[in-house]
Amino acid sequence: MSYLSDIEIAQRTQMEPITEVAKKLGIAEDDLELYGRYKAKVTFDLWEKIKEREDGKLILVTAITPTPAGEGKTTTSVGLAQALAKLGKKATLALREPSLGPVFGIKGGAAGGGYSQVVPMEDINVHFTGDFHAVTSAHNLLAAMLDNSVQQGNPLNIDPRRIEFRRVLDMNDRSLRSIVIGLGGKANGVPREDGFDITVASEVMAILCLSQGIEDLKERLGNIIVAYTYDDKPVTAKDLEAQGAMAMLLKDAIKPNLVQTLEHVPAFIHGGPFANIAHGCNSVMATKYGLKLADYFVTEAGFAADLGAEKFLDIKCRLAGLKPSAVVIVATIRALKMHGGAKKEELGKVDMKTLEAGIPNLEKHVENILSYGLPAVVALNAFPTDTEEELKFIQEKCARLGVPVVESDIWAKGGAGGIKMAEKVIEACEKPNAFHYLYDEKQSPKEKIEKIATEIYGADGVVYTDKAEKDLKKIHELGKDELLVCMAKTQASISDDPNKKGRPTNYKLTVREVRLSAGAGFIIPITGSIMTMPGLPKRPAACGIDVDENGKVSGLF
Amino acid sequence: MSYLSDIEIAQRTQMEPITEVAKKLGIAEDDLELYGRYKAKVTFDLWEKIKEREDGKLILVTAITPTPAGEGKTTTSVGLAQALAKLGKKATLALREPSLGPVFGIKGGAAGGGYSQVVPMEDINVHFTGDFHAVTSAHNLLAAMLDNSVQQGNPLNIDPRRIEFRRVLDMNDRSLRSIVIGLGGKANGVPREDGFDITVASEVMAILCLSQGIEDLKERLGNIIVAYTYDDKPVTAKDLEAQGAMAMLLKDAIKPNLVQTLEHVPAFIHGGPFANIAHGCNSVMATKYGLKLADYFVTEAGFAADLGAEKFLDIKCRLAGLKPSAVVIVATIRALKMHGGAKKEELGKVDMKTLEAGIPNLEKHVENILSYGLPAVVALNAFPTDTEEELKFIQEKCARLGVPVVESDIWAKGGAGGIKMAEKVIEACEKPNAFHYLYDEKQSPKEKIEKIATEIYGADGVVYTDKAEKDLKKIHELGKDELLVCMAKTQASISDDPNKKGRPTNYKLTVREVRLSAGAGFIIPITGSIMTMPGLPKRPAACGIDVDENGKVSGLF
Repeated sequence: MSYLSDIEIAQRTQMEPITEVAKKLGIAEDDLELYGRYKAKVTFDLWEKIKEREDGKLILVTAITPTPAGEGKTTTSVGLAQALAKLGKKATLALREPSLGPVFGIKGGAAGGGYSQVVPMEDINVHFTGDFHAVTSAHNLLAAMLDNSVQQGNPLNIDPRRIEFRRVLDMNDRSLRSIVIGLGGKANGVPREDGFDITVASEVMAILCLSQGIEDLKERLGNIIVAYTYDDKPVTAKDLEAQGAMAMLLKDAIKPNLVQTLEHVPAFIHGGPFANIAHGCNSVMATKYGLKLADYFVTEAGFAADLGAEKFLDIKCRLAGLKPSAVVIVATIRALKMHGGAKKEELGKVDMKTLEAGIPNLEKHVENILSYGLPAVVALNAFPTDTEEELKFIQEKCARLGVPVVESDIWAKGGAGGIKMAEKVIEACEKPNAFHYLYDEKQSPKEKIEKIATEIYGADGVVYTDKAEKDLKKIHELGKDELLVCMAKTQASISDDPNKKGRPTNYKLTVREVRLSAGAGFIIPITGSIMTMPGLPKRPAACGIDVDENGKVSGLF
Repeated sequence: MSYLSDIEIAQRTQMEPITEVAKKLGIAEDDLELYGRYKAKVTFDLWEKIKEREDGKLILVTAITPTPAGEGKTTTSVGLAQALAKLGKKATLALREPSLGPVFGIKGGAAGGGYSQVVPMEDINVHFTGDFHAVTSAHNLLAAMLDNSVQQGNPLNIDPRRIEFRRVLDMNDRSLRSIVIGLGGKANGVPREDGFDITVASEVMAILCLSQGIEDLKERLGNIIVAYTYDDKPVTAKDLEAQGAMAMLLKDAIKPNLVQTLEHVPAFIHGGPFANIAHGCNSVMATKYGLKLADYFVTEAGFAADLGAEKFLDIKCRLAGLKPSAVVIVATIRALKMHGGAKKEELGKVDMKTLEAGIPNLEKHVENILSYGLPAVVALNAFPTDTEEELKFIQEKCARLGVPVVESDIWAKGGAGGIKMAEKVIEACEKPNAFHYLYDEKQSPKEKIEKIATEIYGADGVVYTDKAEKDLKKIHELGKDELLVCMAKTQASISDDPNKKGRPTNYKLTVREVRLSAGAGFIIPITGSIMTMPGLPKRPAACGIDVDENGKVSGLF
C-alpha cells in the first residue's frame, strides 16, 4: 500500500471557487474580498449584517500532552467540521495561519493532513493573504520609530539599555536571536543590544488576534510598552505616535480569511499567535464571524489542554464573551503508550500495562475540561495497530468521568471517518453547560498563577525567583494587576519539567520571570526557557522545496 | 484657491472594478487573479495566449537631473497614458511599485500625483499584492540558510568574514545598517558583522524584475554570490540549495499587477529595484505583457536620463529584447532655473538668464537620448508662473536638436492636460528609429564604464581607486567580464559630484569600488556613497498616518 503525501492529496483535489464555498455560509460575493480564486477575506460590511444573529455551537478541539507520536489536533478539527457537514449541519471551522519560518525548517506545512486538510495548502503555508507580513511590518515600524526617537534627540528620555521591544522576521534564523545594532557611527543610531523573534511571537500578533475592530486594535497597539525612561516610566507605542500607522498596516490583516477544506467545507484561517508566549489560538474576529455564520463552529487551541484550552477559556473566551458548547480532547493510543513509558519501536504492540500507565495524562486533561463546567468528548485518532481491547479499556476509564470516547479515522477517510465523533459532539452540545472561568481577573497575579498551577497543572504550589518577584512588583506599580495570565510553559509535560510524562504530581511550579504584554492585555509568567526565534536544522526543508515553470510547488509536506 | 491632497483626489474617484478595466486590454476575468475588487495579477496562461502578437509602441519617460523643485516623471507617465487613451488609443503603462519604507519617512506615497495617479493609492503604497514582502522573505531565507550552513559544520568552507549577502527589511531603519549578529553563545550562530538594506536594494528584487519566467528566475537566484570560501572560491545560492524555495516564495510576485489610473486606464505596477545600485525600472514581465496588450505602452525609468534611461536602454532592453519607439524627457521651467543657479524663492520670477544657464542640462539629456538613435519629446510640466517667453526659448533651443517641446498640465487636468504631449509622442513613434545600445557586452568592463562616463556623463575619463582595480581583477578571475554595467552614481548631477548642476564638463569620474550582482547579471561600479538603508526623519510621516473604524486611511500623501 502506498500513501500519497499531503501536498499530493491537496493538489489532486479540485477546489470549488471560494465564491461558491462562501455561499454555504450565506455569504454573498459582495461581502468577499477575493485573493485569487480560492482565497478571500470577509468584509466589515458582512459583520454589520450578521452581528445581531444568535451564535452557533462553539466546539473547541484540544489534546493530550503531545509526544513524538503525534496526536493530530488540526487534522481532527478539519475532519470534525467535514463530518458535521456530512451530517447535514451548517458547519465551519477556524484555525491559526501557519508560520512561514517552520515551513523551511523541519515541520513543513501546517494545514491539517491526509484527507482532512485546508486548501490551497501551498498558499496557506506561504504568504497566504499577507497577514503575517503585515504584522512583521507593523512591528518593525514601531521598532524603527523607537530607535529613531532615541537617535533624534531622545525627547521621551528613553533609556537605551531598557528597550524591551525587539524586532521580528517570519523566518527561522538563529543568528538574529542576539545582536548588537546601531553600530557604524553617529548617523547610524545608538549602539545597543537587540534581537529578532519570529513574527508569531510578536505582541502585535497577539493583539491582532484579540482585537474586535480597528478602534480596539489601535487602542491595544498604543498600549504596548516598548521601553522605560531613565526615571523608570514606561514608554508606549502611543508615546511614539505609532499606533495609527501600525493599524493602517493591519487594516486588511484584521479581516478573517476564508478558504475551504478538501471536502469544500468553509474554513476560516486567521491569525497565529505563539502558543508559547502568547495565547495560541486563531483570531477573535474569525471566531465571531464563524459563530454567527454556522450552526456548528469548530476551532482549536495550541498545544495540549493544560496550555491551549486553559488560555482559550480564560483569555480568549473572557475577552470576546464566548461560551463553548463542547470540548474535543484528541489522543492516540500510541501517544498514551508513550506517556506510559513505551519506546517508539514498541508502539505497535498491544501492551495494556504501558497504556494503563499512560492514561492518567488523558484523565487529567479530561478532568480539567470538566472543571470548567464543559461537556467533553475524547477522540482517538485511529492507527492500523489499534485494537478493540485497547479502545474498550480507554472507554471504561473515561466512562467513570462521564465522557464518551470515539475512534476517528479522518486522516485516511476525511469527514466520513469522523461521523461517530461528530455524533458524540452534537450530543455533547445538547448537554447542560455550566461554563465558568478558572479565576477572577480581580484576583492578584499570584492568586491567578497559583490557581492555574494547582488546579490545571496539578502542582503543589508555586515558587517565584527573585527576578519574578521583582517583575510582579513592577507590574503592581504600573497598575496592571488585573490583567489576565498567559502562561509560558513547556508543552511536553503538564508540569514545568518536559521530562515528566503522564500526570505529574508532588512538584512545585517555578516562575522564573513575568513579562508584561500591556497591549495584548496579559502578563506572561515564564516557567522555562522559551524559544522565540527557532533555528534551521542541518539540512533545512527549504533545500527540497521547488516550483516548476507553471508555478506548481513541490517539497511542502 | 484650495487644492485637494493626492489621497483626497484618489479617494473621491469612483474606481471601476478591475475586471472591467482589464477588458479594455482584452483580458478576460479568467486570466486575472483578483486581489480584492480593484487589484489583480495577470496569469501565465494569459501570456501563452498573447505571446505571438506584435509589440505595441514602447514609450520611455525619463527626466532632466532632479532638483528640489521636482519634475514629475511618474505623474507625466500616468498623464501621458491617460492622454493617449483620450485620443482613442489602446494604451497602458507600467510603473515600479512604491517602497513601504519611505511612506513612513518623508516622501509619502509614490503613485503619481494630482489627477494623474494610479489607484487604489493606499493599497499600492502599502503591502499592495505582497510582492515586496515576498522578496524580503526570499532574500532573508537565503541569508538564514547561509548562516545556518556556517553554524552547522560549515561544509562549504565559507569564510564568515567574507559573507557579502546582507539581510533586508522594507523599512527605513538606520539602526540596522551596521550590526553584529550571532552573539549569545554556541547555539545562536557564528558572530560576525552584518547589516540590513531596504528591500528595494536587494539583488533578489533586481532579479525578480529582470526574469522572464520561473525557470529564468530560479537560474538567476541560484547565481547570486553570497560569500567566498577560505580559499577564495565564490559560494552561490545554488551551493546552498536555496534557489528552489526562493523561487517558490516568488512564484506569485513574478506575475504583473494590474490596477487603474484615475481615468480608468489599465496600469501595470510591478517590481521596484533601486535606481541607485540596481537598474531602477519596473519588471520585464510587466513590460512584455503591456507591449503585447496595448498599441501604446508607457513606462518610466528611475532618476534622470543619465542613470535611468541609460540602464533601461542598455540593460533592460538588451536582456528582454525591447525596442523603444520614443522617449519623453520631463522637465520643468522651475527646475531648469535651479540648474542655472536660481534660488528657491526666485523660481516664480521671469529670469531668462538663469533659464539659459540651466538649459544645458536638458540639452545634454536630449543629446544622450538621440545618441541611442531614438526620437525624443521634451515635456514641460506646467506651473502657473511659466510664461510664453520661457516656453518659446526652450522650444528654440530644442528645435536645433530636432526635438519638439510641449507643455503638459497632467497634474491639474489629468489626461486632458496631456493631449498635445500625446500627439507629439504619437508623431515621434512614427519617426525613423535607429535604436542601438551604447556599448557591446563583449567589451571589457573598463571599456564599458568609460563609454558611459564619457559619452553619457560628459566626463573626460575614469579614475579607479585601488579597491576598484582589485574588484575588477576579481570579476575577471570569476569570468564575469561580459556582464552588463549598472552604474551607481548620484542622481543630483550628471557627474559623480552632486554639487555640479547643469551640464558638468572637465572632470574625471571616480570609480571607488565595483560590486558584482552575478544573479541579476551586472557589475555595479560605485562612484559615490550609496545609501542602501534610509533612515526616518525627526518626525516621521508615520506619526500622521491613521485609519478609521471602517478602514479609511488618512495621512498618506
